[in-house]
Amino acid sequence: MSVSRGKQREVKEYAMEPDNGRTENNGALTPIGIVHSCFTEKFGIPRQPGMVASATARLELLPPFNRQEMVRGLEQFSHIWVHFCFHETLAEGWKPTVRPPWLGGQKRVGVFATRSPHRPNHLGLSVVRLEGLVLAKGRLFLELSGIDFLDQTPVFDIKPYIPYSDCILSASCGYALGEQPVVDIAFSAEAEFFCSEYLVKHGRNIRQLIEDLIRHDPRPASQKKSRKNFGMLLWNVNIRWTVEGNRFFIESCAEITVE
Amino acid sequence: MSVSRGKQREVKEYAMEPDNGRTENNGALTPIGIVHSCFTEKFGIPRQPGMVASATARLELLPPFNRQEMVRGLEQFSHIWVHFCFHETLAEGWKPTVRPPWLGGQKRVGVFATRSPHRPNHLGLSVVRLEGLVLAKGRLFLELSGIDFLDQTPVFDIKPYIPYSDCILSASCGYALGEQPVVDIAFSAEAEFFCSEYLVKHGRNIRQLIEDLIRHDPRPASQKKSRKNFGMLLWNVNIRWTVEGNRFFIESCAEITVE
Repeated sequence: MSVSRGKQREVKEYAMEPDNGRTENNGALTPIGIVHSCFTEKFGIPRQPGMVASATARLELLPPFNRQEMVRGLEQFSHIWVHFCFHETLAEGWKPTVRPPWLGGQKRVGVFATRSPHRPNHLGLSVVRLEGLVLAKGRLFLELSGIDFLDQTPVFDIKPYIPYSDCILSASCGYALGEQPVVDIAFSAEAEFFCSEYLVKHGRNIRQLIEDLIRHDPRPASQKKSRKNFGMLLWNVNIRWTVEGNRFFIESCAEITVE
Repeated sequence: MSVSRGKQREVKEYAMEPDNGRTENNGALTPIGIVHSCFTEKFGIPRQPGMVASATARLELLPPFNRQEMVRGLEQFSHIWVHFCFHETLAEGWKPTVRPPWLGGQKRVGVFATRSPHRPNHLGLSVVRLEGLVLAKGRLFLELSGIDFLDQTPVFDIKPYIPYSDCILSASCGYALGEQPVVDIAFSAEAEFFCSEYLVKHGRNIRQLIEDLIRHDPRPASQKKSRKNFGMLLWNVNIRWTVEGNRFFIESCAEITVE
């Protein structure tokens, strides 16, 4: 696909339509890439990027955006911004107010005062670590870590992280983030064995990933008192774990067929 | 406009269409707001947000997103992310590589390795200071400073800035940002007089703004040697200035009729 066609398409898709004297943009976005992630379901995904370094993904650039020259120079940056679509919440719509997890799931605040995936336009934004660029069989991938993307997430843009303007140390943040990480995590002998075999077979350190994810306690606030048994899907592995007080126990791991 | 209608619209606009076995999102974005900015033309806009504190704007939330409850709690944050459309570059399209100003406008890098407004999907991202929320005659405005938005910029999303995940001090950035600010700035007596009158008439400290903008040298790299006379439009004021070596001289300011 030539650049000129890309140009035409952009212009057409973003046709400006005046509406009540205001400038409106009713154009469509074209995914420039798609994420291949360890998170094959929403449960367990870290609440913010950067929390779990062992959470990795490959961002595949899609034609006509998969030309190496389009990312030339990006390797000089350690981190990138990814603009994406919360595609799994589209069908669920959005509400004017939400109950964010950092307020214990109790208090309602405006949707624009949160990072909720249930938001107008369903646009997501994450800063993640760029581990490298990989060209394999004519496909171009960005290797990422510290991610919080669901598998198959459509990506609309990539930008370099520029500490000079993006890092505002003095910014004040109203919400208390005083979540205590979980410290008591144990694996059953069976789960330990599975993880060792999975590492050899797929080259993925799933034990480390499970531990890192559980440490941030992925349970919704509403379920912390009522439930003891939990399940979590990472790649094609179903992980079953229990909670007793402050003790998290990984009972079993099993490969399943993902439909 | 009811929330349920908003929901329906979201779902419809983001209808997922499978394409070559990949998840595609060809939906349209709905502007949630529009920016009323001092920058009525592109020339003079700071290259990054946060550079010029005196550059201010009002972000007006548009129906059905102009309900106070949608921004409840946002006042607890000092900074916000604004997702917007580079609407003035839509017709100009994009190229796979660009020559960013921080490389002196000489070297080409991939468009995804830059913050260029000429990019696929023309999505912009800026972190700006939230000065306050204003409700005036039934319209809801966010007062912003340190902005880099063109007037009439369509806004797609607002998110709180969370230092915990957004501020990555250790991030490395390949580009040298060693731009020396201009120090020798003088105003003609006529320009000084105009600025004093304009402040009284409109309550806008345009003198401070001009000085802050000129200090970051808004000239494109390509014009630094060839041109001496420059013009810049702020609100409805045309500012004419000259450069002699390192001396920037504000010759005149005049109100014009903006079409």
